[in-house]
Amino acid sequence: MGMSIRIGIMGHGNVGRGVECAVKQAKDMELCAVFTRRDPKTVKILTEGVPVLPVEQAAEYADKIDVLMLCGGSATDLPEQTPRMARLFNVVDSFDTHKRIPEHFAAVDAAARAGGKTAVISAGWDPGLFSLSRMLACAVLPEGADYTFWGRGVSQGHSDAIRRIDGVLDARQYTVPVPEALEEVRKGTSPELTTRQKHTRECYVVAKEGADLARIEHEIVTMKNYFDEYDTSVTFITKEEMAQKHAGMPHGGFVIRSGKTGWNGEHTSTVEYRLELDSNPEFTASALVACARAVYRMANEGQIGCKTILDIPPSYLSPLDGETLRKTLL
Amino acid sequence: MGMSIRIGIMGHGNVGRGVECAVKQAKDMELCAVFTRRDPKTVKILTEGVPVLPVEQAAEYADKIDVLMLCGGSATDLPEQTPRMARLFNVVDSFDTHKRIPEHFAAVDAAARAGGKTAVISAGWDPGLFSLSRMLACAVLPEGADYTFWGRGVSQGHSDAIRRIDGVLDARQYTVPVPEALEEVRKGTSPELTTRQKHTRECYVVAKEGADLARIEHEIVTMKNYFDEYDTSVTFITKEEMAQKHAGMPHGGFVIRSGKTGWNGEHTSTVEYRLELDSNPEFTASALVACARAVYRMANEGQIGCKTILDIPPSYLSPLDGETLRKTLL
Repeated sequence: MGMSIRIGIMGHGNVGRGVECAVKQAKDMELCAVFTRRDPKTVKILTEGVPVLPVEQAAEYADKIDVLMLCGGSATDLPEQTPRMARLFNVVDSFDTHKRIPEHFAAVDAAARAGGKTAVISAGWDPGLFSLSRMLACAVLPEGADYTFWGRGVSQGHSDAIRRIDGVLDARQYTVPVPEALEEVRKGTSPELTTRQKHTRECYVVAKEGADLARIEHEIVTMKNYFDEYDTSVTFITKEEMAQKHAGMPHGGFVIRSGKTGWNGEHTSTVEYRLELDSNPEFTASALVACARAVYRMANEGQIGCKTILDIPPSYLSPLDGETLRKTLL
Repeated sequence: MGMSIRIGIMGHGNVGRGVECAVKQAKDMELCAVFTRRDPKTVKILTEGVPVLPVEQAAEYADKIDVLMLCGGSATDLPEQTPRMARLFNVVDSFDTHKRIPEHFAAVDAAARAGGKTAVISAGWDPGLFSLSRMLACAVLPEGADYTFWGRGVSQGHSDAIRRIDGVLDARQYTVPVPEALEEVRKGTSPELTTRQKHTRECYVVAKEGADLARIEHEIVTMKNYFDEYDTSVTFITKEEMAQKHAGMPHGGFVIRSGKTGWNGEHTSTVEYRLELDSNPEFTASALVACARAVYRMANEGQIGCKTILDIPPSYLSPLDGETLRKTLL
């Protein structure tokens, strides 16, 4: 394989830890440094012998890292960090605020071009692998409709929203696709589905002793933008049950497109892409790490600027060469 | 969109007809000519005003066609046609003999380079979209196992094999994934599965009057390489039933990979890609036509030589530009 691809991680939360795990599995990569905004002494990483440094020191590593993985949050970290770092490093991020992708792309593209670097943004699974599936199915079946279902999985944002309610100690919210809607879509009938018809929301809540449970439940199910358009169930559980049964971060979902083929659209084709993930952040990180390999190759070819998974020749994501891929996987 | 991509079709069987249908749906393409080895007067195509010409005249169209779609068979047509045509045209084929892909690739690559043209081979769904799914899942989840199931769908080769048995007038063979095997694989346990455990084969046979049905059934289920390693069911039906219930060419299948994430592989992720097709040749053709768009773009960029779906930046398959894709599909 030649030399290893030298990886840096910025931000050591769940996704950053997932990147460490994925780099361990990648025979062609090695982790070189982890940058954090916390006190580095308080950050315990998994890989032995790798320095944990303050983010302010990152620039000193510009020549020692081939690809920097930006593992902060999409709300405030990445809009600022990715463009700033893209001037100095080849970067990958998992920016996932769909609506703001065009402006994030523009900012990162300008920075990467200014620095002569290569960036891939929004490289997790949605946006990311789900986007790729939507695009491919759309290109092959132009006359059709596609549907994305999420879950069963934990929504961090919805869990946080419940935690802010008075009397709530802890909460976990699962987004769940409605099985009947999935079946309807798979039949290729291209149904029109309301928000309520596509997903339900299951909430598990630990309440303070003596809290008014009826009020908490009412506040949850009527919460604007979060729950009011869904059928929502609320189950009160103990702290112990929360720790035992709801500590994981499972997620997943479905991208389904059905379209017509034939001279008069007389035949139906249905394409389905499905993910079922024990650990959402670890799988997200695994996708980011595959994209880091592509960034490294594109950078070596002089393909500078910002890209997304839609721009990457798929073989660039694989450690195998073209000949081996054609022989074994095609 | 600018000018249309000018498409030619060589070979007007089921896939060639499917290409006609898919080009009709593509707003950025137009069909320019159909080439056939049959007497052109006997070939009735669907698109009005498009000439049907003998294959010998193809070379005269070298400047009038942007991408030539090679729709012959993989056994004898494409190994000869694709390299020959790739010297003169940008081409796409659906060569599907997995074992012979490396030699076909080499022959087409040499020819395309000699002619300064761009070629994409094996661009249907397996090889093709299924290969892409296998490769992507493998790149993201390097520690895992993948499984490909085909069906429920008609296997042309197996149907033909039954038709060659003495006393058989007509036959249709369906390949069917074993539901229990699918479920086992989806669980992420990476089971070892024998040929028999993965698929069953259903045969519908029209026998000659007075034929020895027990002998025919015995010859089918014991047929080497075709049926002996499978659980095979044989059902004798009338000519009328064959015409009514088995005239279609449905197919499809599943690519499922499960892999481990986490520091010690403690979590499982499962990726599933599924196709369910009323018409196998029409969907295959739809995939070929999306690849024709990519070939056209790569040719315009001077990317000559032979490629596969694994080499194509996905956005090249779509008629939408990068900005629109990022805004609407990412």
